[in-house]
Amino acid sequence: MTTVMQRTRIPRDSANDYTHKAADDRRRFLQDQTGGELEHVTSYSFDPSILPGNIESFVGVAQVPLGVAGPLLVDGEHAQGEFFVPLATAEGTLVASYNRGMKLLREAGGVKVTVMDDVMQRAPAFLFDSARESRAFAQWLDDHFDEIKQAAETTTKSGKLRDIEKYSASRILFTRFNFTTGDAAGQNLTGKATAAACGWITAHHPAIRRFFLESNFATDKKSSQVNMLRTRGKRVVAEATIPAALIREHMRIDSPTLFQARQVSNLGGFMSGVNNNGAHSANGITAMFIATGQDVANVAESSAAFVFDELLENGDYYYSVTIPSLIVATHGGGTHLATQRECLEMLGCYGKGKVRKLAEIVAATVLCGELSLGSAIVAEEWVHAHDLYGRNR
Amino acid sequence: MTTVMQRTRIPRDSANDYTHKAADDRRRFLQDQTGGELEHVTSYSFDPSILPGNIESFVGVAQVPLGVAGPLLVDGEHAQGEFFVPLATAEGTLVASYNRGMKLLREAGGVKVTVMDDVMQRAPAFLFDSARESRAFAQWLDDHFDEIKQAAETTTKSGKLRDIEKYSASRILFTRFNFTTGDAAGQNLTGKATAAACGWITAHHPAIRRFFLESNFATDKKSSQVNMLRTRGKRVVAEATIPAALIREHMRIDSPTLFQARQVSNLGGFMSGVNNNGAHSANGITAMFIATGQDVANVAESSAAFVFDELLENGDYYYSVTIPSLIVATHGGGTHLATQRECLEMLGCYGKGKVRKLAEIVAATVLCGELSLGSAIVAEEWVHAHDLYGRNR
Amino acid sequence: MTTVMQRTRIPRDSANDYTHKAADDRRRFLQDQTGGELEHVTSYSFDPSILPGNIESFVGVAQVPLGVAGPLLVDGEHAQGEFFVPLATAEGTLVASYNRGMKLLREAGGVKVTVMDDVMQRAPAFLFDSARESRAFAQWLDDHFDEIKQAAETTTKSGKLRDIEKYSASRILFTRFNFTTGDAAGQNLTGKATAAACGWITAHHPAIRRFFLESNFATDKKSSQVNMLRTRGKRVVAEATIPAALIREHMRIDSPTLFQARQVSNLGGFMSGVNNNGAHSANGITAMFIATGQDVANVAESSAAFVFDELLENGDYYYSVTIPSLIVATHGGGTHLATQRECLEMLGCYGKGKVRKLAEIVAATVLCGELSLGSAIVAEEWVHAHDLYGRNR
Amino acid sequence: MTTVMQRTRIPRDSANDYTHKAADDRRRFLQDQTGGELEHVTSYSFDPSILPGNIESFVGVAQVPLGVAGPLLVDGEHAQGEFFVPLATAEGTLVASYNRGMKLLREAGGVKVTVMDDVMQRAPAFLFDSARESRAFAQWLDDHFDEIKQAAETTTKSGKLRDIEKYSASRILFTRFNFTTGDAAGQNLTGKATAAACGWITAHHPAIRRFFLESNFATDKKSSQVNMLRTRGKRVVAEATIPAALIREHMRIDSPTLFQARQVSNLGGFMSGVNNNGAHSANGITAMFIATGQDVANVAESSAAFVFDELLENGDYYYSVTIPSLIVATHGGGTHLATQRECLEMLGCYGKGKVRKLAEIVAATVLCGELSLGSAIVAEEWVHAHDLYGRNR
Repeated sequence: MTTVMQRTRIPRDSANDYTHKAADDRRRFLQDQTGGELEHVTSYSFDPSILPGNIESFVGVAQVPLGVAGPLLVDGEHAQGEFFVPLATAEGTLVASYNRGMKLLREAGGVKVTVMDDVMQRAPAFLFDSARESRAFAQWLDDHFDEIKQAAETTTKSGKLRDIEKYSASRILFTRFNFTTGDAAGQNLTGKATAAACGWITAHHPAIRRFFLESNFATDKKSSQVNMLRTRGKRVVAEATIPAALIREHMRIDSPTLFQARQVSNLGGFMSGVNNNGAHSANGITAMFIATGQDVANVAESSAAFVFDELLENGDYYYSVTIPSLIVATHGGGTHLATQRECLEMLGCYGKGKVRKLAEIVAATVLCGELSLGSAIVAEEWVHAHDLYGRNR
Repeated sequence: MTTVMQRTRIPRDSANDYTHKAADDRRRFLQDQTGGELEHVTSYSFDPSILPGNIESFVGVAQVPLGVAGPLLVDGEHAQGEFFVPLATAEGTLVASYNRGMKLLREAGGVKVTVMDDVMQRAPAFLFDSARESRAFAQWLDDHFDEIKQAAETTTKSGKLRDIEKYSASRILFTRFNFTTGDAAGQNLTGKATAAACGWITAHHPAIRRFFLESNFATDKKSSQVNMLRTRGKRVVAEATIPAALIREHMRIDSPTLFQARQVSNLGGFMSGVNNNGAHSANGITAMFIATGQDVANVAESSAAFVFDELLENGDYYYSVTIPSLIVATHGGGTHLATQRECLEMLGCYGKGKVRKLAEIVAATVLCGELSLGSAIVAEEWVHAHDLYGRNR
Repeated sequence: MTTVMQRTRIPRDSANDYTHKAADDRRRFLQDQTGGELEHVTSYSFDPSILPGNIESFVGVAQVPLGVAGPLLVDGEHAQGEFFVPLATAEGTLVASYNRGMKLLREAGGVKVTVMDDVMQRAPAFLFDSARESRAFAQWLDDHFDEIKQAAETTTKSGKLRDIEKYSASRILFTRFNFTTGDAAGQNLTGKATAAACGWITAHHPAIRRFFLESNFATDKKSSQVNMLRTRGKRVVAEATIPAALIREHMRIDSPTLFQARQVSNLGGFMSGVNNNGAHSANGITAMFIATGQDVANVAESSAAFVFDELLENGDYYYSVTIPSLIVATHGGGTHLATQRECLEMLGCYGKGKVRKLAEIVAATVLCGELSLGSAIVAEEWVHAHDLYGRNR
Repeated sequence: MTTVMQRTRIPRDSANDYTHKAADDRRRFLQDQTGGELEHVTSYSFDPSILPGNIESFVGVAQVPLGVAGPLLVDGEHAQGEFFVPLATAEGTLVASYNRGMKLLREAGGVKVTVMDDVMQRAPAFLFDSARESRAFAQWLDDHFDEIKQAAETTTKSGKLRDIEKYSASRILFTRFNFTTGDAAGQNLTGKATAAACGWITAHHPAIRRFFLESNFATDKKSSQVNMLRTRGKRVVAEATIPAALIREHMRIDSPTLFQARQVSNLGGFMSGVNNNGAHSANGITAMFIATGQDVANVAESSAAFVFDELLENGDYYYSVTIPSLIVATHGGGTHLATQRECLEMLGCYGKGKVRKLAEIVAATVLCGELSLGSAIVAEEWVHAHDLYGRNR
């Protein structure tokens, strides 16, 4: 590690880096440097000119296997009817498992889905000489909300500053600038608008010693209690009541056992400090995110969930999953890319005015997967273990 | 929602469903059903016969743009020297940002990386008549560890049962069956081996009323405090000491400000209940996971991180990131797929005996991205806000 | 356990149970039943007639040793100057340790204290047929805030309904009815007023299937992230900047080491999932709570704290502690009891208009104790360990 | 705040500070300084000579009202039969509410209680040049466990080093030195023994850069997930199955509604990030702690709890509460003080060999209080709200 040699630079075409040639130059460079072949990586079907704003140092593509599950019957306010859901994954059984859940839920009349809230934030922190100035500043923010809103919204057409939350500690005021962002997931526009707002604020408030545009209170790309409480992106509830007979038929388990397993899982999750008392919502969310051009890193936060179930008197089973920070877009980001757009179009979710529809389909998909895996875990007790080591032998 | 019609079935070739023809049948079916075109999705460069075990109802691929960053200078125990890192993403600036960090860290002598622990678990819960039987059972597990281990390991060549953790609540004993799993991420082998162990246990212990193979104590695909404490997958530390001058030169910010921003972020994160006091490790991890065939849904848990920094007396800056549940594989799962294998080979990480090397490269990449974005957030105060609304105007 | 015999009843005087005689009857009963002497317990110096509303089945008193620390120099908005602080405890060194900190902080110019917020809540949950009715109800609450406020405030003179927070999950709306409560801690008045508000709500909203007056969202007598974020009782910041030389002189340690110990503690606390990254604020708070007639069980929630420190360029040390849910009263509850009132009067904090003053004194006391113990832990490395096993031997 | 005058010193008798005279000197000093009367505070019934090790600057006592509840029927391994429980509190209805629960549980056959684990810890952190030395040190601790245990145990007769847990982050190894501590709560002996162990360790291990005896991983006087998982003090489960008819009779509510309220509370608690999904265990614990001479500040950690219930097919109701970090003593600390000893003797819990008996009684008491308040909250819906604003009017 002692002598650091000249840094080998990855080739870059400063005139236009988004061409087949620029990509190919990099491919040859990487083959030279690493000795590896890059045949499949460089087999992409679209023109690199669509990529500015999506990637740098483009070489090619990762080809992620794409399966399809469905029909998924959705009773949303935006998504209504049957959908075939594209799932990009390399995990065997994932598509089959979601499909099994979709079949059950279709028989049960579909999944009801509701978008409860919709908000994106950036969270600047402001530092003062003492807590008193911090407290006064919190009041000042309220007093100047209109001007701050105006400053923020100069930078964006679709973003609207809804409110500013305030959390104080020491001589610091942590804030959350909450925006509605239309069909974009909105992290970037929110960042830009909040920076503009902070520009106005720091120019007009005399006592701010320093501010940082982000200080772990929006928790972008991270899971947090504050977002589970206060929402980031879409807060969505998917719910259904499934007749006991259907559960027995499709899941090979009775609803009281399923309910008991949930009870034990809830206790386990409370003790283990998990951010999701359900089973595996990240599986379906990730597979849909890759397929539809979402920012897949948001799985970190979108994987939080609350499951709540009820065993009804007649044995029927009410089941719901609440996703408090589901971050999706149907416009901007990776949604316009070649395969991603096709997947969105397959769902009728490409472009403006579709984002809540997409959120509903994702949440409905998640519910199907929860019931399917949840049932399998319970049924496994009998199938596997008892088959292998049954006491009757 | 009242009348449920006959379910339209996705076509499936029961003889061999992993053929171009089977995929094409589904493509046509989906086009008929949804009216969408599936041109790019069906432009894949490999033979579908490689896919069993990776996906069901295969239609084609998601083409995710792939960029490359580097060279990344790694001082690991398994990864030594310079690497070019494949990053599959649609988020503009991600590749550039990681690349900027890699440049800085290379100048600083590279990133030191250490795998601290390596363990995969499944977490069955056992139910009893009262807490006393649960307590006795905990002792019984210790007394019969050898037999349980033997039962577990009949199902796997590479998995070894290391120990069984026990957590009691009510009349339930929650356990974690901890396995070492070689080069596989190991969730599946761990699940199978734990099921076998539970089979032996339930056949031999008279007092178990019921057990569930999983109850939110392994928190697969979910982030949890128990995994931040006790490790799931690889626990990896990446660390470096960066001269003050280099930070100023590359990041356009001084190290005391960077340190102060961390302090504020740490406080913010403590209060917001975040699972990661750093900036955005999920970005780099997700992009590498997609590129190299990892189970991307594991971003939910692999995105947890602890950042710890020190401002040295001479102004140099010690920075470290600890990833307590990084789940990676170089064998099995999606690692053998066409583009995924090429990316692993580019890193010298394909196949057996490579998994800790890959873990080290991922963690080193994460550290570079943390410093790059962390600096940008701090610098942004000056660049953006002051440019736009500077007090001197 | 099989045969349950007639229940022996504790004597009770249905005419007037708050007399020396009623207490003495119970003393004799207990001596008969248990064989234990109750000499000291029954040595109390006040008339039992003051006790209705404070206790049932009164027998006597626990005599908790009371020490005093000070002078504590406070720079609050309500508490100004020097105070002698009563501390009721049986833990040796507690009073001495707080006293040591008070001495240091007095030299440093005192502790600046600020009450940032002041709010008490009750948290009813409302259940609906589906999430959509829950969402509509959230809007309905906003639309009918004035009527709800009026219904709530019919039951209380000092309580004012400030706002209603809403948190949705499944088909349930969790709410927090936030009240300002004057000089009372206010749990009871808040409970009563919220019950009245809920009475109005359930009488006027047609879709509520059921409601529960409390569902773990106010987390009375329990610590929670929501209260660390959103405040319960008083949110108070105590802060001071201590010259490096004073720390060396009084604490026998240098400020950079103290700062480093904090850094390590912060990381430890983040990983361990603690509700307080400081040292032991519960010690001072508990001792003051017992002395001054607070509801001591509130230590469960009042023990949460955020410590934030800065090592200044000249070596001076900024230190702050934020208590997000400090629950105190100077009126009602146990504040009027014989010894409790004397202790409050010693602080000039008995009766109406004093509650923020008391909150400031508590927080200032906490800060002194944090610095004192924090320093001792750090200094212990040298004193104990090195004395006993120094490498130079 | 600018000029700091000479510090007024609280009087202290350097020959013997634990006399009536020394206390009286302080009383007069405080009356002079503050103008307050200290009549009741100085009415204590014991000789101050018993106080060394319990308090400094003794002035007198806080007289906390003491009530009694019971009989409480306990089916423990150490506590068997009926007990009258002393509760020191100033919160009206607390004693009555616990008493109501005890009556119900006695009818139901008593509370079964089990101490699941018993361990006290101190948590030193060790700092290294890099993570690799930290990892090697973790192994070294295992290799030298016997010598470390010997060094630790030189300082204590009753403390035994059971094991050392290790948690790594950055270049720091956080540890938990777990001791069994006999009848003492054991924080002090654990601290001393761990300091001795660290002395041996630092004298023999060459690579430790620095260590801190405590770094927020034992979380003394604070609530934490690590202690909820791994136990601090006693981990105790109290449980009972209550016939449906008894619940209706005593609690005026049916068991399905009680069960449903728990379900909603569990969800609320999961979302709010509470450390206790039950109702108010801190109330009973605090009142017993004050009465029996416990370190009351431990309420901070002892207030964590897991409630788990089941609605049986016949409508009977299984209910359990798990207290993961209940810290109690029957020897040492404040247990020998005048009233405190009487209260312990009333329970048959004074002195050696009694600590698990006391833990069982505390946990049984907690369960009674949970059911009593839990029922009241549910019943309140009908009683209050419907009385006041019933729809039928």
